[in-house]
Amino acid sequence: MKLYITPTSGNAWKVRLLLSMLKQNYETVVLDTAKGEHKTPEFLKLNPRGQVPVLVDGKHVFWDSTACLVYLARKYGGEQWLPTDAESLAEVQQWLALSNNELHYGLQWARGVKIGIRSIGSYDEYATYGRNGLTVLEGRLKSNDWLACGRPTIADLACYCYTAVSPEGGLPHDDFPGVAAWVKRIEALPGWIKRV
Amino acid sequence: MKLYITPTSGNAWKVRLLLSMLKQNYETVVLDTAKGEHKTPEFLKLNPRGQVPVLVDGKHVFWDSTACLVYLARKYGGEQWLPTDAESLAEVQQWLALSNNELHYGLQWARGVKIGIRSIGSYDEYATYGRNGLTVLEGRLKSNDWLACGRPTIADLACYCYTAVSPEGGLPHDDFPGVAAWVKRIEALPGWIKRV
Repeated sequence: MKLYITPTSGNAWKVRLLLSMLKQNYETVVLDTAKGEHKTPEFLKLNPRGQVPVLVDGKHVFWDSTACLVYLARKYGGEQWLPTDAESLAEVQQWLALSNNELHYGLQWARGVKIGIRSIGSYDEYATYGRNGLTVLEGRLKSNDWLACGRPTIADLACYCYTAVSPEGGLPHDDFPGVAAWVKRIEALPGWIKRV
Repeated sequence: MKLYITPTSGNAWKVRLLLSMLKQNYETVVLDTAKGEHKTPEFLKLNPRGQVPVLVDGKHVFWDSTACLVYLARKYGGEQWLPTDAESLAEVQQWLALSNNELHYGLQWARGVKIGIRSIGSYDEYATYGRNGLTVLEGRLKSNDWLACGRPTIADLACYCYTAVSPEGGLPHDDFPGVAAWVKRIEALPGWIKRV
């Protein structure tokens, strides 16, 4: 397998975490976005969005971190990281959606503005939306160890990466003790790796 | 089953479409957002995000349109609308992600500003992002009838609803003939229903 990343991408980190936890070998291709390597015709053939991560496994190519997580969990993880009965699959999907919405457009973009890697949009708008996301996570995690199915799944990995770094975006976890404990719980899982 | 909607919600329309195509009976609960019925303590217990759609099936409650689609497809549609092998599941997930990203924060919000139901944010930013989404859809649909797996899946329904109405948001399909043909193809599927 081949995984296209940028060194600091949180979305690529989600996939690197699962690959590590599944003990899968893969080749890493590091793109230099300053040189526009994510917008070359060759890369856009792999991912028309021009973003990382992209996962290539034989003839199969997947873009979007949630699709990469779904693929790896099903292909190499049996039912452990993504159960396929209707109830479990939908329960996991809810949190994949939260990661694609409040956590991406809230936590990730608020942090982007704060640390100077995003130049458009309103910090306050992003921060408010991100805080909504933390509140939804806290509602679940104040009385549950994991987001779905009573065990670690790709729901946790998808939501973890931008939540873990949200304090850098001015959104600390002081008011979200369930979230803070869950972040530590994920970081204690076998195979957990740092972002950079 | 019980489905909470608002009369004009495009996200609820996605779920109503699948319920109709699966020939499932359900009760509709119409919320009046002007009266804040989506923010009552009772409704927030069902969905902490305070949004429609919410699907209740016995003791199971699902929020987010993509989770509702996943649940219904798996529970009542066999493998037809959501195959569960790794490759197919990930292929569908890519497009669910597009619907949660470029189509929601691009097409849906551009239309929201244009028709006066969204008061914050930049139309130009939303329109640019939405056009990116249409371009990604066109890249697939110029030479494929359906988004994933060579047949209609929940990927198509998730992406269809805000694409179909994007001309109302100043983003017509003239430059996207593959998209325009696909919209008509979906509207010819047995069980297709209008938004309102």
